Amino acid sequence: MTELFKVLTLAEARAAIMSYLPAKETGVKVPLLESLGCRLTVAVQAVDDVPAFNRSTVDGYAVTAKDTYGASESIPSYLDVSGEALIGREPAGRVEPGQTWYIATGAMLPPGADAVVMVEYTEELDSRTIGINRPVAPGENVIRRGEDISAGEMALPAGHRIRPQDLGLLSSIGVTEVEVTRITKVGIISTGDELINPLEQPAPGEIRDINSYILYGAVSASGGQPRLYGIVPDNYDQMREVLALALEENDIVLISGGSSVGARDVTFKVINNAGKPGVIFHGIAVKPGKPTAGAVIGSKLLFGLPGHPASALVIFDVLVAPLLRDGAYPATEEESALEFPVKAIITRNLHSAAGRRDFFRVKVSSKEGQLFAEPVLGKSGLINTMTKANGLAHIPAGKEGVEAGETVDVKLF
Amino acid sequence: MTELFKVLTLAEARAAIMSYLPAKETGVKVPLLESLGCRLTVAVQAVDDVPAFNRSTVDGYAVTAKDTYGASESIPSYLDVSGEALIGREPAGRVEPGQTWYIATGAMLPPGADAVVMVEYTEELDSRTIGINRPVAPGENVIRRGEDISAGEMALPAGHRIRPQDLGLLSSIGVTEVEVTRITKVGIISTGDELINPLEQPAPGEIRDINSYILYGAVSASGGQPRLYGIVPDNYDQMREVLALALEENDIVLISGGSSVGARDVTFKVINNAGKPGVIFHGIAVKPGKPTAGAVIGSKLLFGLPGHPASALVIFDVLVAPLLRDGAYPATEEESALEFPVKAIITRNLHSAAGRRDFFRVKVSSKEGQLFAEPVLGKSGLINTMTKANGLAHIPAGKEGVEAGETVDVKLF
Repeated sequence: MTELFKVLTLAEARAAIMSYLPAKETGVKVPLLESLGCRLTVAVQAVDDVPAFNRSTVDGYAVTAKDTYGASESIPSYLDVSGEALIGREPAGRVEPGQTWYIATGAMLPPGADAVVMVEYTEELDSRTIGINRPVAPGENVIRRGEDISAGEMALPAGHRIRPQDLGLLSSIGVTEVEVTRITKVGIISTGDELINPLEQPAPGEIRDINSYILYGAVSASGGQPRLYGIVPDNYDQMREVLALALEENDIVLISGGSSVGARDVTFKVINNAGKPGVIFHGIAVKPGKPTAGAVIGSKLLFGLPGHPASALVIFDVLVAPLLRDGAYPATEEESALEFPVKAIITRNLHSAAGRRDFFRVKVSSKEGQLFAEPVLGKSGLINTMTKANGLAHIPAGKEGVEAGETVDVKLF
Repeated sequence: MTELFKVLTLAEARAAIMSYLPAKETGVKVPLLESLGCRLTVAVQAVDDVPAFNRSTVDGYAVTAKDTYGASESIPSYLDVSGEALIGREPAGRVEPGQTWYIATGAMLPPGADAVVMVEYTEELDSRTIGINRPVAPGENVIRRGEDISAGEMALPAGHRIRPQDLGLLSSIGVTEVEVTRITKVGIISTGDELINPLEQPAPGEIRDINSYILYGAVSASGGQPRLYGIVPDNYDQMREVLALALEENDIVLISGGSSVGARDVTFKVINNAGKPGVIFHGIAVKPGKPTAGAVIGSKLLFGLPGHPASALVIFDVLVAPLLRDGAYPATEEESALEFPVKAIITRNLHSAAGRRDFFRVKVSSKEGQLFAEPVLGKSGLINTMTKANGLAHIPAGKEGVEAGETVDVKLF
């Protein structure tokens, strides 16, 4: 029953995991439309200027700016309308001094013109002449060639996770295939002699498996590809066999341990003997989730998560989800702050031990423009505390608790 | 060129759309593991108690609480160890007064016992006797039968969107199939004579299609099922034909309009003639995105989005995304506040007109525990303003701008 605990702080555990990750990830090419949420393995450079020509941002008249200097409502500048810049077409001809072309929003500026006067500031005198009531500066109402992105400029950096707007940026530069990190495969094993498949009716003493389902959902939601390996009894040989298969077929394996000390001992023994380099920590200074284990087996990561569903999910959130989403943990304190970006007033006192990072589930609500976080408390084995919450708050390691009325940092989910 | 604008506020536009949505959504049954992110069409009730038995939350000794009253380190209560409650098994026997059973975390409490003493507060005298150093109250260290959820209790309400932890709750009550709203199909049409497929090399005056890709990503990210109908030129008959097909094959259709007044006129004419009941608004008091149109054609929703990518995405965020994610808009001011839950200090003055809701993209960063929002400004046709931002902030309709140093509400993305 004795265990050699190697307890790290959360930051130390993260650093230890990162030290084993390969510096460069392998990429696969996918069509642009399938790349949403994936991370780029290499930076994308623009090949052409975007836009590839000077483009009007308004409906109006393309002019040589200096032809409009001094124009006013009382003394308009009069210009000859000598053409029309049609959208999607190359202008046939040029705007000579004293001339103007009608131009639609988005159309290419004809050569000779360097600005556009909005139609609102013009008056049609006859079909060939307009008066301009207001001067424009060169470049006014124009997006210049390459103003959005210029050829050779980096459009998106390596490691960037592709959002909807990034699909637009990439399509604008003609990128229809991108090299992204392949989706991380995550094997999920539940252990515990008391667990049964949710399809079955529990006999007295039995409990339906919960952690497999929570972790399956959490892996999917974080952009990983989950695979369930079912429920393994608290038996060394059986667990070892299933773990070996899961490690072979996945990049990361999660074992959510049995809840009793005996079951945890078996699970840890299996983790400890799974291969080299082996266990990098056993225990982290967080609550809930202290008995978490982390190991590296070859190039695969292995986590022994707590048996309590709420604890397992907190540890997943802080140790596994960032790897699936970003391939790394926040690198700086500034980045970390964006993990818990919502400030809310806590509605009751909460205790914490100095040197320990405490996480607790909260129900965030808004009242007269102010956000309040009500801790959803309850025994740690309960599931309904998880489903009643809509956020996770934390007390930093340096603090010994918070008092009602203090502001806490929250991540909504 | 004349248009009959029917300009609504954002709240009025949302209310108008909601008034046309069916009160009850149709559901489809899906396996539990495929239901992540879907919304329940009917509430889920628990059939059994969870847990189905009194369960120990610690490793220790199951006792009759009153046998421990008065126990202390100097005067322990001595009890006979008459059995062991194994995890996953029904205890064979009962704890009689003066007796105790060893019990593992998660195991079923034997009849007769009503509390558990943690192993830390016991001492083994011999193989049949232990001393107890601290009293326990009835129910201590026990999750009672039905304490998590009791039979007949509502586990999750209709309309609830399933999160990872909800999969755990549902598996705990043996629900392995759920009835959820089928995924909303969204057809996407780009219009504009200047647009070409991103695979092609643009001729002078041509621009690669951006909106199709941004909207495809935005629909996917919001839980909808996007389908592209390509680029349609600014031609009434062609647009009408493609729109009719898209309306037939989808629940919602998005047309992102040409950017010039002429192109917008064609698009609006097609929307206006698409069917009954027809256009419900044309223009909303928001910036960017004023020229947005909304129509109902039979039971389908049709949105005419602005041509500028950044404007189209803002309007998607505030009018379309909530429907895909939640089937509705936030119903109360309190719910609305959670749409923009992050408070950040704006780093420069921004103007706004009273009565108009202004949205602007920001780059949020953290500095010494405080979040700052730097507006990412630029001409409205640019795409890189979208990709440089990591958040959307807003100025409420009642305000005429914000000054540097004021706090604004932000949604991170």
